[in-house]
Parts: sequence; C-alpha cells; structure tokens
Amino acid sequence: MRLKTIKVVQYGLGPIGLGIVEVLLSRPWVQLVGAIDTDESKVGKDVGQLLGNPRKIGVTISDKAKDILRDASPDVVTHATSSYMKTIQPQIIEIIEHDASVVSTAEELSYPFVKYPELAREIDEKARNKKVKVLGTGVNPGFLLDTLAVALSGVCQKVNSIRAERVVDASRRRLPLQTKIGAGLSPEEFEQKVGQGTIKHVGLPESVGLIALAMGWKVGEIQERITPVITERSVGSDYIKVPAGSVAGVRQVAKGILAGEELVVLDLRMYLGAQNPHDSVLIDGVPPVDMIIRGGVQGDQATPAIIVNSLPKIGHLEPGLRTMLDMPPIAPCLNLTEGDRSVMLKTF
Amino acid sequence: MRLKTIKVVQYGLGPIGLGIVEVLLSRPWVQLVGAIDTDESKVGKDVGQLLGNPRKIGVTISDKAKDILRDASPDVVTHATSSYMKTIQPQIIEIIEHDASVVSTAEELSYPFVKYPELAREIDEKARNKKVKVLGTGVNPGFLLDTLAVALSGVCQKVNSIRAERVVDASRRRLPLQTKIGAGLSPEEFEQKVGQGTIKHVGLPESVGLIALAMGWKVGEIQERITPVITERSVGSDYIKVPAGSVAGVRQVAKGILAGEELVVLDLRMYLGAQNPHDSVLIDGVPPVDMIIRGGVQGDQATPAIIVNSLPKIGHLEPGLRTMLDMPPIAPCLNLTEGDRSVMLKTF
Repeated sequence: MRLKTIKVVQYGLGPIGLGIVEVLLSRPWVQLVGAIDTDESKVGKDVGQLLGNPRKIGVTISDKAKDILRDASPDVVTHATSSYMKTIQPQIIEIIEHDASVVSTAEELSYPFVKYPELAREIDEKARNKKVKVLGTGVNPGFLLDTLAVALSGVCQKVNSIRAERVVDASRRRLPLQTKIGAGLSPEEFEQKVGQGTIKHVGLPESVGLIALAMGWKVGEIQERITPVITERSVGSDYIKVPAGSVAGVRQVAKGILAGEELVVLDLRMYLGAQNPHDSVLIDGVPPVDMIIRGGVQGDQATPAIIVNSLPKIGHLEPGLRTMLDMPPIAPCLNLTEGDRSVMLKTF
Repeated sequence: MRLKTIKVVQYGLGPIGLGIVEVLLSRPWVQLVGAIDTDESKVGKDVGQLLGNPRKIGVTISDKAKDILRDASPDVVTHATSSYMKTIQPQIIEIIEHDASVVSTAEELSYPFVKYPELAREIDEKARNKKVKVLGTGVNPGFLLDTLAVALSGVCQKVNSIRAERVVDASRRRLPLQTKIGAGLSPEEFEQKVGQGTIKHVGLPESVGLIALAMGWKVGEIQERITPVITERSVGSDYIKVPAGSVAGVRQVAKGILAGEELVVLDLRMYLGAQNPHDSVLIDGVPPVDMIIRGGVQGDQATPAIIVNSLPKIGHLEPGLRTMLDMPPIAPCLNLTEGDRSVMLKTF
C-alpha cells in the first residue's frame, strides 16, 4: 500500500487562505511547497508567522507566482484570492500553464457557464490540453445550497422544485463579516451600499446553476434580490450594537425560474441575533425530502476543510474545468494509502 | 448536444425490481431491452403485465439470462435478485462476461471487502478486464447511513466519530416488511427468528465499512446487534395488531470499534407505530454537523430511484468493482444531453 503525497502551493493568504494553510499542515499526505501573496507586508516572511500559533514552517511567502509555480512544481494549487472570475482568470491560466491543478474558493468559478461562458471555455480548454483539473468549491457555493441538495435528490424518482436555506448568526463571526453584511446601518445606508455592490454575497446564482444543471433543467431566468434584515429587537455582538428598527444583516434570495415556475429557490440570511441558525433543503418530489442541519455549518471552519478534503479526489476528475457535480463524496481523510479497501486492522 | 441513450436489462422482478422498471420506463434516455426472472409464473409474460398499471411494454420476461444478455446486448443491467454475495456472484460474473455494467440493490455488494474479499477481488478483476463497472447501491445501504454521512463530513477539518440513525414507521409499509421485522411476535418468538436469521436487515456492517473507508479509519471490529422493539402501548397496521408488551418491530445497531472507541454507530429501527420517523446523521467533528431528515426517506419509492439515477454516472467510474464513494452526486435527471453546461434557455 502506497502512501500518496500531494505537493501543494497556497495562493492567497487572507483569512481563508491562512485557514487553508492550517488544515494543509494537519494532513500528513500534504507537502506544502510554496505560498503566494501580493501583500508586501507578507512577502518574505515564513508563512508560519501568519498563523494563529506562529511557528516556522520553512515556506517563504512570495509575490512572484510564476517563480513559485516553476520552482516548487506543485501538483495542485489551493487558491483563495478573489470571488470574481475576471480577477482570477489570469491567475488560473498561469497555474494551468505550469501543469498544476487548481482547487479555488472563488465563488464565480464554482459555476461560471452562465455568467462567463468564454472565460470558462478558455480555462476548460487549456486545462484539458495540460491534463489538469480546475475546481471551484467551498461551503457556499460548493456544498450547502447546491451539492448537498443535489445529493439528497438522488433518492427521488422525480423532483418538482428545490428550496434551500441558510441562516447564519453573524454575531459569532469576524468583524469584517459583520460589517460586510451591513449590520448597524440604517435601511437607507444599506440600500446605498447594495447599489454600490459592497453588500453582496457572491455565489447564489452559481448554486442555482449547479442544481439546475444536475436536474437537467433549463431556466428562463436566474433572479437575485438583496434585502436588509431589520431587527424588531435590539441585538449586538462584541463589535456592533444594532438598535430596534435598524439593519441587523442581509437577506439574499436567488431563484431559477421557468415559465413563471420557481424551480429553485435559495434563501441566505446572515444577521446579528439570528435565533434559529440552520441549513436546510426542502425537495418537493417523489418522495419528498425535508432536511435540516441544526445550528448550521460553521463557515470559517468548514471552508478551509472542504478545499483541503477535495484534494485527494481531484485525481479522479477528467481534465478540464470541473464542478462539484463531478466530485465523489469528500471526507477529512488523514491517511491516504491506496490499494486496500478493507477497513479491518490486520490480525496475525 | 447529443441525447444519450442507455440500453438496460432488468434482472429480478420482485417488488423492488418492478419498482425499478417503473422508474426506467419514465426515463426518456432509457431503452429497456430485456427482463430476467426465474419465477415460472412470470416467464413468457410481457413485463408490463406485472406493473401496477398493467400495459404492454414489448419486453418479454425470460429466465435465460445468458440469452438475454447476448441478444439484447445491454450497456447496463439493473439487478435486484438477492441481498447476498454468494447468491449474486455467478449472476454478476455472467453479466460482466457479456460486457455489461451492473447496478445492483444487493446489500452485501455495496461494501464486500471485509466479508468477501475473494469474491470481491474476482468481480473487480473481471470487471476491470472487461472495462465494465459494478456498483452496489440503494437507500440503505448505499445512501442514508453511509454516503450521505460521508458527504456531510466534507465540511469537517476533523471527525472524531459518526452516528447515524434511521427510524421507520413500518405500519405504512407492505405486509411482507411488517412480517419480516417481527411485528406481532412475542419476545421469545422474536429471539428465535433472529437466531434463525429470518429477522435481519442486511447492510449495516457494509455502511460501517463505507464510512470507515472514506475516513481512512481501520477498525478492530465491526459489531452488530439485533434486538426487538417492545411497544409500551398497543399499536397496529392494516395487517397486524400488536398489544402492549409485544414486539412492534426490530432495532439493529452496528458499530465500528477501535481500541474500545466507537468510531461509527449506526442505529436502525423499523417498527409499527414509530412516532418520530426520521433519518439523521450526527458528526462529532470540527465543525460538528447535526442533520435530520424529518419524516425520513420513503424507502419503497427511493430504492428504485437511486438505482436508476445512478445509471447516467456509471460511465464516469473507473472499470471494476466500485462503491458509492466513487460516485458523483446523482439526481433524477430526465434529460441526458451532453456538451452544454449552461442552464439558460437559448433566446434569440
């Protein structure tokens, strides 16, 4: 039985990227061979100095992606720089050109075929030519409001529609998130920021697309609407106090609609003081499926997990731009031996 | 965009096999090219005569598997004859020898590597040589107490243990099931039938094996225990009345244990009058996951669904004996066009 090792470069060292590094370092089958970030205050440091428990890892942060990719020669790059296809496209292409696969948190990459068909086609072709795999994943999009809903539909003879929800109590999350969701603003300030695009979770239309693709549904439109969650009672966190009548956070709803029928409805709420946080999927089908994850999945811990857990399985993907609909189930497997499917300890 | 068609032979025409036929007939991408059963009262009939809504399908039931496999030349055989590897082994080998893949409800096939390593190895080798795929699947084992639990673990950095439950109100199910679970027996009669092996759900150790395999866990033992569910109040169904103090059904618990630690615990209860039917998965991990399917998945509808929904995806499997851990998410997709991943209707 062979123990596999995967050589990984981490590209992007913001909070999510560093979370990914922590999980990578916990996997005996990972060899971290490089770390890329353009933030000058990070370049030149050992990546371990940026971790919660600072320590020497022996990997120096560089802003020269091309050099790192060429010299470290990773099997795969775990990528967490931006949500947006236009921003990440050149980064992904450069990685592909260095014969490495990519697993990225970029939300628009999880399902780019409606918004960016040409960019998607280019990535797909180049990756196929180089025989590497490119995958956008994460908790949302990437799992809770798409892949999990599709997986649950596997027990259905027929599905009429799918509704999925995620309600997050943002008071337990980091300050940047609490600000990003508009907590503490007046309704007018909230609308202004939505107009500017500074209050927006990226990824709901992508999740709609993944579900529709899995079902074989073609839709006439994918709608998205962002509204404030106004709190009736005063709520707060360690950082922000929100009086009654002010904005506690954001609600974003995306729908896949065909001839007036809502085939897919995805409802995301992130606000301070959410009293019943959960993730749920409701399938109107034969049979119906009514699933809830009580308390919801903790996103800060889960996002790095799903990125790293994907790594052992991307070897099984066809080359090209893939999606979570191509991936087998992933798990936090600490041992990557191959060849033995018995789970019994050998006894002699 | 090409519409795929898959040529299917149904092997086994008991209640589950006929349920599979119904779902196959609902799929425009299925061409049902044969039906096999050894029951003389069925042989020679049009398979449509055995359906709930009897009708002419144009497929005649045969007991000559070899002839059907040779003449109909299916791409895949949907197989539902027996739960047991020793019974199905020659049937599977015969199908492989005719260059067809297999998707089977046989519970022991879903994870045979601990109980039947040699039979599994033989099937795996032959299938690889013939470049076909063999998959055991279903609702349980195959999804609820294994694949779904593994899929949920994908959001975890680390998992300490997994507990999954299925509670079924058997009063809503067919009489044969109600009898099979021992409803109406005295506790002594129940123990006797357990000893004889006539009261037993097949598949819990297989589900333990699948979870352990996904996690990379090796266990010292896989335990299984069958006990009666004694009802404190009188319960009943259309068929069976169970007085207080008698057996309402069965509880089966399987565990994967290492050094005294219960890494996997699977708890199945099927009894008349179950007041809170559900399917649940509880992951002790970072983060934890607490999932419940309220009401539980209706097994009679779901089992044929998951068999047929698997068909479009087996093309992506490596040849050989596979498991649900190799399968991407499956869905009740009615359209099997290839090549276009946009879900938008074309507009001109």
